[in-house]
Amino acid sequence: MMSGMGRITIADIARQAGVSTAAVSYALNGRPGVSDATREQVLKIAADLGWAPSSAARSLSGAHTETVGLVLARAPETLGFESFYMQFVAGIESVLSERDYGLLLQVAPDIDAEVRTYRKWRAARRVDGVVMVDPRSPDPRLDLLVGPDALPAVVVGDPSLSGGLTSVYTDDAAAMRSCVEYLAGLGHTSVGHVTGTPEFGHTHIRDEAFAREAAARSMVTEVRRADYTPDAGAAATRDLLRRGGVTAIVYDNDAMALAGLGAAHEAGVRVPGEVSLVAWDDSPVCRAAYPQLTALSHDVAAYGAHVARRLFEALAGEPPASYRDSTPELQVRGSTAPPPAR
Amino acid sequence: MMSGMGRITIADIARQAGVSTAAVSYALNGRPGVSDATREQVLKIAADLGWAPSSAARSLSGAHTETVGLVLARAPETLGFESFYMQFVAGIESVLSERDYGLLLQVAPDIDAEVRTYRKWRAARRVDGVVMVDPRSPDPRLDLLVGPDALPAVVVGDPSLSGGLTSVYTDDAAAMRSCVEYLAGLGHTSVGHVTGTPEFGHTHIRDEAFAREAAARSMVTEVRRADYTPDAGAAATRDLLRRGGVTAIVYDNDAMALAGLGAAHEAGVRVPGEVSLVAWDDSPVCRAAYPQLTALSHDVAAYGAHVARRLFEALAGEPPASYRDSTPELQVRGSTAPPPAR
Repeated sequence: MMSGMGRITIADIARQAGVSTAAVSYALNGRPGVSDATREQVLKIAADLGWAPSSAARSLSGAHTETVGLVLARAPETLGFESFYMQFVAGIESVLSERDYGLLLQVAPDIDAEVRTYRKWRAARRVDGVVMVDPRSPDPRLDLLVGPDALPAVVVGDPSLSGGLTSVYTDDAAAMRSCVEYLAGLGHTSVGHVTGTPEFGHTHIRDEAFAREAAARSMVTEVRRADYTPDAGAAATRDLLRRGGVTAIVYDNDAMALAGLGAAHEAGVRVPGEVSLVAWDDSPVCRAAYPQLTALSHDVAAYGAHVARRLFEALAGEPPASYRDSTPELQVRGSTAPPPAR
Repeated sequence: MMSGMGRITIADIARQAGVSTAAVSYALNGRPGVSDATREQVLKIAADLGWAPSSAARSLSGAHTETVGLVLARAPETLGFESFYMQFVAGIESVLSERDYGLLLQVAPDIDAEVRTYRKWRAARRVDGVVMVDPRSPDPRLDLLVGPDALPAVVVGDPSLSGGLTSVYTDDAAAMRSCVEYLAGLGHTSVGHVTGTPEFGHTHIRDEAFAREAAARSMVTEVRRADYTPDAGAAATRDLLRRGGVTAIVYDNDAMALAGLGAAHEAGVRVPGEVSLVAWDDSPVCRAAYPQLTALSHDVAAYGAHVARRLFEALAGEPPASYRDSTPELQVRGSTAPPPAR
């Protein structure tokens, strides 16, 4: 009953059922044109033979690739210490695997390569839709993702940056305000911010919230631009400690905060006795550090799962909308305390 | 000249070239049946129109999906702190992206789900080949990956576990021996080992090398079974420190070593003054810790790239072979020193 290649085909099922291949196709695809009895018989034979649809055949017939695409436009080496993306991917997978979908993952050196990847995926019908991360302003990717012939997409980021597409976002401004408020409550009046890649929209949102909230509380601020790498986090921390003055530092990711903790140890500056440190994106690394790092904590795997569910809604034809995921909450641990007495 | 859907089809090219669609297909697929002049003209028109082959059409015609599959049979939450896999994936991507290949990534809860995924991918022709990680003994996945109708695959692990398939591996036994030798050279005579998941073949290889090399040097050993999570690493460390005796601990990954460092700090045990710690798989986390962690260091991204290159060779029909990647080398940092004087 098997075809030559060892794969079950519609013809095999048709032969065994004694019906035409067209009837088998109607039955398997849930279309009218066959009786209920025939449909039931065909489905039973298909199941018995272990038939699985060819994704190639289905996408030619306008059906689904059962694949979702994600491009990460980051230098490959940054992925090794950005626990965010692996947790995010794991969350996406937790929803995809329930529906037998796969995730087509492409690491691209830059945003131009990301645009080329979308173009190729669209032309070759490789994915049903994509998850777009790190929106910018302006964002060249939106040209390919907005419009009648576009790839269905969900943007992970602020609705103001999503070009009208469905977006899932966290309220980073509120999270940053709560962090500055907490430090002010401890008595800090001079705080540093080791911030992320300026092209990313969320960096701008966090920067602005930090500056405004600190100004509203008459705090003195020092900002250091960095790129999420431990080396940049350590260098910015050394610089802030050398200049003196700040008694607390907020970092835009956990890898930089951990490196900042190492730099403080190295410089003989006590944490939290002389300087308090706060990480963004909590992770097991924050809990494993000594002292444990106070962090803006967010369930990143749940965030990824939320994004995947919204993408399935978009694929099902739901109109675009914006969805706020839970706001990162400050998890207070051992790396923060009141500033040293003068 | 565009088709209704906005995608360039072979019919569009045929119309513009004034030849049959069959001739266009021959020309585009590099098959005989058209003159060189026609072939050249077709290729030029295809390029001018921005034609891209449909992966669906190509896989129906027996050509490639331009996709490589990777299943990670781990609980999704472990991926967030296992920097190994994100670096490994980044290395694979660095080779795939050169050839415009994508990586179809599936996180599966267990090895049975991984087997089902392979079966589905093979039936639906979703990937050209797979990278299989964490080989076991016996390994149910090999039934699907060995044989005439199997998915082409490269096994990441010891050749003794690869079922005759192409394998790429590191000499974990040699790396572990060098680590024990180093600790013995410092004067340690009682060492702990916080080891990994027993089902994985490499765990067995490391365990055995640790036990043999320590026995050959008349060292006393304490082994604690753990599962790569920071919590398990911290618990095993607390237990070893409470019992007393060991003056050095070797961990099977960096996340457990970092958690062990935190547990030692918490217990007021000085590192490296009272206990030395060694991580397996170096990562930025090891350099960011204080003191910085001595680690068995391996370029994991290069390892992933190596695996991807061997998979392309397998896809091109090269016979199976075993390839040893570079051996993890001990990177000595601040977490190791001679044992305390008695």
